Amino acid sequence: MSDSRITAVTPLAGLRIVEISSFVAAPLAGMTLAQLGADVIRVDPVGGAADRHRWPLTAEGASIYWAGLNKGKRSFVADLRSPEGQQLVSRLITGGGQQGGILLTNTTDREWQGYDALTQTRPDLVHLEITGRGDGSTGVDYTVNAATGFPSVTGPIDHEGPVNHVVPVWDIACGLYAALAITAAVRRREITGAGSRLVIPLENVALATASNLGFLGEAQLNGTGRPRVGNALYGSYGQDFASVDGVSFMVVTLTPRHFRDLMSVTGTTEVVEALATALDADFSDEGTRYRHRDVLTALFARWFRARSAEEISGALSGTSILWERYRTFDELVSDPRVTANPLFTDLRQPGIGTHLAAGAPISVDGAYQPARVAPHLGEHTDALLRDELGVADADIARLRDPATDSTKRTNP
Amino acid sequence: MSDSRITAVTPLAGLRIVEISSFVAAPLAGMTLAQLGADVIRVDPVGGAADRHRWPLTAEGASIYWAGLNKGKRSFVADLRSPEGQQLVSRLITGGGQQGGILLTNTTDREWQGYDALTQTRPDLVHLEITGRGDGSTGVDYTVNAATGFPSVTGPIDHEGPVNHVVPVWDIACGLYAALAITAAVRRREITGAGSRLVIPLENVALATASNLGFLGEAQLNGTGRPRVGNALYGSYGQDFASVDGVSFMVVTLTPRHFRDLMSVTGTTEVVEALATALDADFSDEGTRYRHRDVLTALFARWFRARSAEEISGALSGTSILWERYRTFDELVSDPRVTANPLFTDLRQPGIGTHLAAGAPISVDGAYQPARVAPHLGEHTDALLRDELGVADADIARLRDPATDSTKRTNP
Repeated sequence: MSDSRITAVTPLAGLRIVEISSFVAAPLAGMTLAQLGADVIRVDPVGGAADRHRWPLTAEGASIYWAGLNKGKRSFVADLRSPEGQQLVSRLITGGGQQGGILLTNTTDREWQGYDALTQTRPDLVHLEITGRGDGSTGVDYTVNAATGFPSVTGPIDHEGPVNHVVPVWDIACGLYAALAITAAVRRREITGAGSRLVIPLENVALATASNLGFLGEAQLNGTGRPRVGNALYGSYGQDFASVDGVSFMVVTLTPRHFRDLMSVTGTTEVVEALATALDADFSDEGTRYRHRDVLTALFARWFRARSAEEISGALSGTSILWERYRTFDELVSDPRVTANPLFTDLRQPGIGTHLAAGAPISVDGAYQPARVAPHLGEHTDALLRDELGVADADIARLRDPATDSTKRTNP
Repeated sequence: MSDSRITAVTPLAGLRIVEISSFVAAPLAGMTLAQLGADVIRVDPVGGAADRHRWPLTAEGASIYWAGLNKGKRSFVADLRSPEGQQLVSRLITGGGQQGGILLTNTTDREWQGYDALTQTRPDLVHLEITGRGDGSTGVDYTVNAATGFPSVTGPIDHEGPVNHVVPVWDIACGLYAALAITAAVRRREITGAGSRLVIPLENVALATASNLGFLGEAQLNGTGRPRVGNALYGSYGQDFASVDGVSFMVVTLTPRHFRDLMSVTGTTEVVEALATALDADFSDEGTRYRHRDVLTALFARWFRARSAEEISGALSGTSILWERYRTFDELVSDPRVTANPLFTDLRQPGIGTHLAAGAPISVDGAYQPARVAPHLGEHTDALLRDELGVADADIARLRDPATDSTKRTNP
């Protein structure tokens, strides 16, 4: 096999992937594969899937979210309730030549798009389903997260009740696991000729992560899980501080050198050493710094409280300390880390407007690939019907808009 | 190329990857590649890297965290400060035959392991560095997160100041992007013969995610970013509720059917309809449900507050509503979703103890691969020195423990 389209920035060029998806995990997986060069066709029911109008919206009601997660794909719309529409999509999935036959789906409740049905015509299919839970039952990031334990340890120390994360971490991790699993399965198929039947349950992504990071092992081996510690860094010394002008900073010290620099810049070296002696504590040990974090924070906070954000930034800059000024989304979008970051493209997205959009966060030979526009819903339906599925022009209008055919049900 | 080791559960078998890493992102990337069948060798300095004693710890002081993120790898220890140690590791990276020559590193401050140095002997190297920020400066999940905007919208509505997430979402996403980028680059090398030079900055992973999900576009296009909405679902109706016996539930309704079921089960159909009429609101629209969430929550909460957790679970189970009972880590580890989940293996981890550990959250042909033990630090040093690097037995003891050679500096 040789393919001139395969370059360092398009390592997956040649692959043809069909995605039947909605919300975050599966669309992110497909978009990521497209960012690496694959031809990804997102399939939607007539009118779009349940994420078609997901917030945030523009003032005109277009979904910024939908545009953000479908960049660089082709869009195919079909009546997924009709046998004819299902057959067309099945042919799209199983076609595409040697490097087609790859399905990414999170809508597993339809038999026609199942592994068994599709491998009747394409035995080497790479079939990946994203499900809610391992038993196939439903679940979304918010419900899966509730069971993981994380909401009970996130948030202010004195808060009672769970605190949800805002970034949908399980969806993101699930989408990236899916992109990886497909890529690895493709490598296997290219070497052995065999396809794969893969399922990634969102809940198992969350549980595996909680296990990998030691949250579950801690509860099981030590008999008690991690407590809620607010913005403190667990097991080492890190904390947020506020300046006199009300700006918050996150400060992290992972090594003895970081911690010495924090004492030095805040002028607390002598008092912390006196404290260490009085407490018989060795602050070169990160666990000891963690256990005594409250008194240490009280000492350091005096220095932060007496200074402006600008003074604090200037003083911390010359040190080894890991630190960052907290920003809101409003501050971030006008910050050079976005406006002057080669990760971002000033993207003219039809229906949405021109805005800075990110490409894949993978620099290749020192450069990022520009972000590409998302399709409008059904943009590539006609071309795919005609060129890939061999449908006659006379039938294309009917298939494009089944609502005009009174014998067909329309999707809600 | 043909390789009998490549099966559906080991699609990356044959690959030999060297990982020079610490903390979360790079170790997670390496472990994930190992879970897919690759031979991953983690390289550490004498005494271990900075994450060697990272919390959580067992009562005996062993790192549950380290064991969790290094499962299924081989461990090689060398004096990374000495030219001799650097040369040995360089040979390990560039060796490994046709499918070796893959480096995953998050310690980019050493010239000898840079792309330019290593491609002198191995031009087809796949070289992936994880950095803090795009300009190469340092950053960790906690500091990167502070700049993303998420802490300003996470946490209770009435809370002032930032709320950090506890799950290190950027590290996790960065590690999975790294595993994917390496796998895609390997596919390219297998087809074209060419290597790749890849860099993934942790901060750019966070910014790309904020962009993909519309958080940045919303602030830029609408002039104002998302507010803090507590545990509410943004743009649709979802909320947490407490039972009379103090158990919290997360309830999510994404479709009109979900919402109708929530009204029905809580006996509020008539009152919500009266409310809709009085407010001239159409609750079949998810944005309308979101805008009126406070009054809706007040109505629904009465039903939850009057019932036990068991009654609530029973009533919600028969509906289409997406819901989950919040659990602590302590509750989770004895819950069937962990104890009866085929994702988990009762792993006997030397130095840590027997506990339930997760494999990769990817089911292949309906089954999960069992979790494998993590090595002890340096477990494979001797074998790799002898068998892969051709070091004479007389030199192995000296290289294994450079501290015994008084002419060498020891690592701190």
